[in-house]
Amino acid sequence: MNSKINVGIVGYGNLGKGVEASLLSQPDMELKAVFTRRDPSKITLENSDAKVESVNQLKEYIGKIDVMILCGGSMSDLPEQGPQIAQMFNTVDSFDTHARIPEYFSAVDKAARDAKRTSIISIGWDPGLFSLNRLLAEAILPDGETYTFWGKGVSQGHSDAIRRVKGVKAGVQYTIPKEKAIEAVRRGENPHLTTREKHFRQCFVVPEEGADLNRIEQEIKNMPHYFADYDTEVIFISEDELRAKHSKIPHGGFVIRSGRTKEAHKHIIEYSLKLDSNPEFTASVLVAYARAAYRFYRQEQYGAKTIFDVPPAYLSPLTGEELRVRLL
Amino acid sequence: MNSKINVGIVGYGNLGKGVEASLLSQPDMELKAVFTRRDPSKITLENSDAKVESVNQLKEYIGKIDVMILCGGSMSDLPEQGPQIAQMFNTVDSFDTHARIPEYFSAVDKAARDAKRTSIISIGWDPGLFSLNRLLAEAILPDGETYTFWGKGVSQGHSDAIRRVKGVKAGVQYTIPKEKAIEAVRRGENPHLTTREKHFRQCFVVPEEGADLNRIEQEIKNMPHYFADYDTEVIFISEDELRAKHSKIPHGGFVIRSGRTKEAHKHIIEYSLKLDSNPEFTASVLVAYARAAYRFYRQEQYGAKTIFDVPPAYLSPLTGEELRVRLL
Repeated sequence: MNSKINVGIVGYGNLGKGVEASLLSQPDMELKAVFTRRDPSKITLENSDAKVESVNQLKEYIGKIDVMILCGGSMSDLPEQGPQIAQMFNTVDSFDTHARIPEYFSAVDKAARDAKRTSIISIGWDPGLFSLNRLLAEAILPDGETYTFWGKGVSQGHSDAIRRVKGVKAGVQYTIPKEKAIEAVRRGENPHLTTREKHFRQCFVVPEEGADLNRIEQEIKNMPHYFADYDTEVIFISEDELRAKHSKIPHGGFVIRSGRTKEAHKHIIEYSLKLDSNPEFTASVLVAYARAAYRFYRQEQYGAKTIFDVPPAYLSPLTGEELRVRLL
Repeated sequence: MNSKINVGIVGYGNLGKGVEASLLSQPDMELKAVFTRRDPSKITLENSDAKVESVNQLKEYIGKIDVMILCGGSMSDLPEQGPQIAQMFNTVDSFDTHARIPEYFSAVDKAARDAKRTSIISIGWDPGLFSLNRLLAEAILPDGETYTFWGKGVSQGHSDAIRRVKGVKAGVQYTIPKEKAIEAVRRGENPHLTTREKHFRQCFVVPEEGADLNRIEQEIKNMPHYFADYDTEVIFISEDELRAKHSKIPHGGFVIRSGRTKEAHKHIIEYSLKLDSNPEFTASVLVAYARAAYRFYRQEQYGAKTIFDVPPAYLSPLTGEELRVRLL
């Protein structure tokens, strides 16, 4: 008898592959199938002999998969897939379009409640672990300020923006937090920081042959929303160098709460991540929360949840007693 | 009509005073009474016009106080008070004698279940927030190592141990994490660290007149359990200097998880605290978890809980919707 949690993956890009890998180190979970919109016969899994199926076959797996981990994008995949798949399975996803979270939450909540399933949305590190730390720190030190810094890491959105500039063949953008700002926050100075003072943007750009480098640089630096409010550096490199030095997807960041208690005693709470691979780490968070989704479901706690609703014990394969002895 | 959470404090030492101060910055909580084993008429509260009562009058407040925050010590107060008061009130405490947690949990759990109350035990930062971070990080990165460092800060237990040495009039002990060890962990080297390699102990000692300083120093440095396994520095100072420079109670520390995902990608999760006042910060954590205890109680989830059982949203006065908009 198989008492493991049966898991499915929807979407086999970097995130889906990260989930597949993460499941290998979880003793109580097993990958049953990967669902794709591509031709399943053209996909070979990296680390598993699970089945590869078309997303059109999802229905056939109702009752056979305990939690479906949705690895599509927030722009166009999840707004549609989230509520749809929540009608059939418990789900976990990394929906991260902040402004649309209330609307997405409602849609998934309704679908999951109607179907008596549990869905945990917006899991990852931001939104996700960073959100959790913002909440904890603010609840504990109400009198204070919270600062979030991102990086050093590759921003997919900003890299895409660079690549849309005419004359750019390829490019990668790194978001880099400014050490001076972080140090001021760590000293408990509660500074008011402008966008420019918090982060620096570094762009490695491969130009097309004969392109006007000066125009490209100015166009990037003055791009509204993406770069205009920042100090931005543009560095032109060859395609070979881009491939050799900038093909990894590192990321990370800091959530720092600087608060006070009586007599102006200062307290600094800092949470930080330094990640070699953003998608693999995000995938690892999704997998731990898949365990939680299944626990909620077993307790008949249906509907949509966020990281704020999950008792930390639900993330661990250990029992409450084991946790108290080993980790408390 | 008063819709605030009515809070009581049992024990008015540094921790109790910290709870009193922390409650001032919580919009939805109100201090109703402080209970003491001393003569109540001799105690004046620092920041509140709440009543001061004898612990013998606790019973009279049943139904009038929603959560009792227990601020006694783990050595002799809590093992007795915890289960006793859990029969009358929802409680939160900072029980931190690690080896006795299972036994304490059972005793409080039974009392609280029988009385249909909720008790959250072992709240603070270690056990507490550090435990929570150990759990989260291990669940997310099962393939890795967790390191906990404490300090720089005053260890009450070690300071007491110094003061028991013959010829010592007063003294304070600082636990200091070794920067070299922390840096190796942050680089993802997953080092094996001995006790001596992790922390350094610094003792400021006021000798009695005419005492043999060399004997005191040797006695401290060779004290089993407390100092023998560490590099220990003993510095003799005057009583005036001790008062002027070492009367604060700072503390802090680090929980660092260094884990891997496929292809040997390294990930570092770091949680750190830098606290001007250990008791005031611990008190602030207790107060946030008092809100959670009351929420559990309102949902008829009775018995003993730990930080592992508490959905983070229970710590905040904001609604789920507000949290999703503001902090997710």
